[in-house]
Amino acid sequence: MSDETYAAGCAWVEGDYLPVAQARIPLLDMGFSRSDCTYDVVAVWQGGFFRLDDHLDRFERGCACLQLATPPRGTLREILFECVRRSALRDAYVEMIATRGVPRAGQRDPRLIENRFYAYAIPYVWIANPDKQAEGLRLVVAGSVERISSRAVDPTVKNFHWGDLVRGQFEAYDREADTVVLLDHDGHVTEGPGFNLFAYARGTLLTPADGVLHGITRRTVLELAEREGIPTRITRFGPDLLHEADELFGTSTAGGVMPVVMVDGKPVGTGKPGALTEHLRALYWNAHRGGAWVEQVEYRSA
Amino acid sequence: MSDETYAAGCAWVEGDYLPVAQARIPLLDMGFSRSDCTYDVVAVWQGGFFRLDDHLDRFERGCACLQLATPPRGTLREILFECVRRSALRDAYVEMIATRGVPRAGQRDPRLIENRFYAYAIPYVWIANPDKQAEGLRLVVAGSVERISSRAVDPTVKNFHWGDLVRGQFEAYDREADTVVLLDHDGHVTEGPGFNLFAYARGTLLTPADGVLHGITRRTVLELAEREGIPTRITRFGPDLLHEADELFGTSTAGGVMPVVMVDGKPVGTGKPGALTEHLRALYWNAHRGGAWVEQVEYRSA
Repeated sequence: MSDETYAAGCAWVEGDYLPVAQARIPLLDMGFSRSDCTYDVVAVWQGGFFRLDDHLDRFERGCACLQLATPPRGTLREILFECVRRSALRDAYVEMIATRGVPRAGQRDPRLIENRFYAYAIPYVWIANPDKQAEGLRLVVAGSVERISSRAVDPTVKNFHWGDLVRGQFEAYDREADTVVLLDHDGHVTEGPGFNLFAYARGTLLTPADGVLHGITRRTVLELAEREGIPTRITRFGPDLLHEADELFGTSTAGGVMPVVMVDGKPVGTGKPGALTEHLRALYWNAHRGGAWVEQVEYRSA
Repeated sequence: MSDETYAAGCAWVEGDYLPVAQARIPLLDMGFSRSDCTYDVVAVWQGGFFRLDDHLDRFERGCACLQLATPPRGTLREILFECVRRSALRDAYVEMIATRGVPRAGQRDPRLIENRFYAYAIPYVWIANPDKQAEGLRLVVAGSVERISSRAVDPTVKNFHWGDLVRGQFEAYDREADTVVLLDHDGHVTEGPGFNLFAYARGTLLTPADGVLHGITRRTVLELAEREGIPTRITRFGPDLLHEADELFGTSTAGGVMPVVMVDGKPVGTGKPGALTEHLRALYWNAHRGGAWVEQVEYRSA
C-alpha cells in the first residue's frame, strides 16, 4: 500500500498500519461499551514531535491508574513515529489509546481481559483555527451542566467521559458562543471541551488547580510564563474572576494558546486578544522550532 | 453466509448483518472518542422479547435528549428481530446503540455530524449466573469512588460513562466481594455496575429515586410487587438502610432479580436469599412465559 493512501491519516490497529478511514475497533471492546480506556494526544509540528516523552509519561501513568497494560515505551514510540512517517504529515494530531479490550462470552471481570492498544496520526486539529484565534473565542460558563467530579472520574487520567462537556458545547451554541467552561459542584471553574483555562488578573496568571486534566500545554505555558518572570498561581476560583480578568485564554495540544475575548456575552478586557496572551502564544509556537522539547521525525523521501 | 456462523451472536453495522466477532466501529466515531452515544439492552427469553417497546421508548427518549437521530421504530424493530433470528438464540442479550458518528476532518461541531446506529444479539448475559444467584451476591458500598452526578451526566439516559462503576468493581474485588453499589455526593445510595438496587426493610420495598437509571427490570419489580400488595417506595436513603434491611437484591435485564446476602462483609437478614426476593424472582421469570410483555420471535426453521 503506497504512502499516498495515508494522506488523510495513518492508524495502527492490532499490529497493522492502515489508512485511518479503515481503522476500526471491535464493537464489543469495553473501551467503547464502558468507556474503560485512557488516551493521550501529542502534536507533530513542522516535522517534529512536541514534548513526546511528557505525553508518554502521562499516558503510562493513566494506564497504571486504570490497571491497563501498555506496549513498552520503545514499541509505543516506534508505532507513533511510524504512523506519522506513513502519513507523511508535517503537522499532525497523534493519538494513542489503551482500552480494556473484548471480554470472552459472559466474562465481566475487567482484570481478566486482554487490553488493546490503538494509535493514529491525522492532520493537525485546531479547537479554534488561526483565523478564529486572531479574532478570539466567545466563551460561556455552563449553566445547564456541571463537570464530572474528580471523586467519580479522575480528570488527571485523560478519558473519554465527555457527556458533560458535549452538553456544555450544545449550551454554548444555543447561547451564540464558540465554546464553554464547566464549573464543579462547588462552583469552581474547571475546564472546557479539550482545553484548560487561564485568567490574567491583577498581574498574576491563574489556572484552576482541581478537577482538570494536567495539560501539557498548560504546563508549557506555566513554564514559559515563569521564565518570563510573570507571576503564576495554580488555585481555585469562581466564574467572577473570569468576568473581572484582563485577559483569558484556553490551552490545548489541539490549538495551543487560544485567546478568549468574550465571556457570557461581555467583553474580556479590551474585547481583543490580550497582549500577554499574544506574547505567550508566540513563545509557545517558537518553542516548537527546536530545542529540548522537539524530536524530529525522519520522513521517507518521496 | 449460513446462520451457523452467527452462533456467537449477530450484529448489524452500517446496513450489514455480520457475526458479532467481526462487528467493528470506526476508531474516529465520537461514540467512542467522546462517549457521545446512548444505548439500550433488551432480553430475549425462550424465544420472546421482554418489554421490547418499553426499552425502545427509553432508547428513543435518550436519543432525543442527546440530539441523536435514530432509525424509525419499525426499522429499529426489524433490525433487532433479524439479529435474533440470524443468531437463532432463544435466550439473548440484545443491544442497540446510537452514536454521534465520525466527524469530517477538522469538524468539531456535534450538530453537523451524521449519527450512526449499531445493534447486536449475543447469548444472554448474566451479571450473576443462576448458581451465583442461588448462593447470593456479596456487595460492598464503594468507599473509593462516588457515582457521577446527575448534574454532570443524566443517568436516565443510558450511557457508557462507567469509569466510576469500573473503579467500584475493582474495589469490590479487592474487598473480596462480587459487586459494588456507589453513593452520590450527598451519601445517598444510587446503583451498581449494570443494576438497580432494592432493599426490603420494615415491610416496605425501597429503591433509590435519584441518580439512577430507570431500569425496566426495576419498573417490572415495582409493578409485580404492587400487584402482590407489597408496599413500595421510591425514595432516598443512605448506606445504613442497607445494613439494617431484611433483604436486598439487584435488578437488571442482564440477570433479572439478583439476591444480595452480604453487605460490607456482614450478612443481610439470615445471610441467605430472602423469601420476598425469591418470590419476586419467580414472578419475574414467570412473566417471561407469555402475556402482554412478551413478543415471540419467528425463527427460521433449521
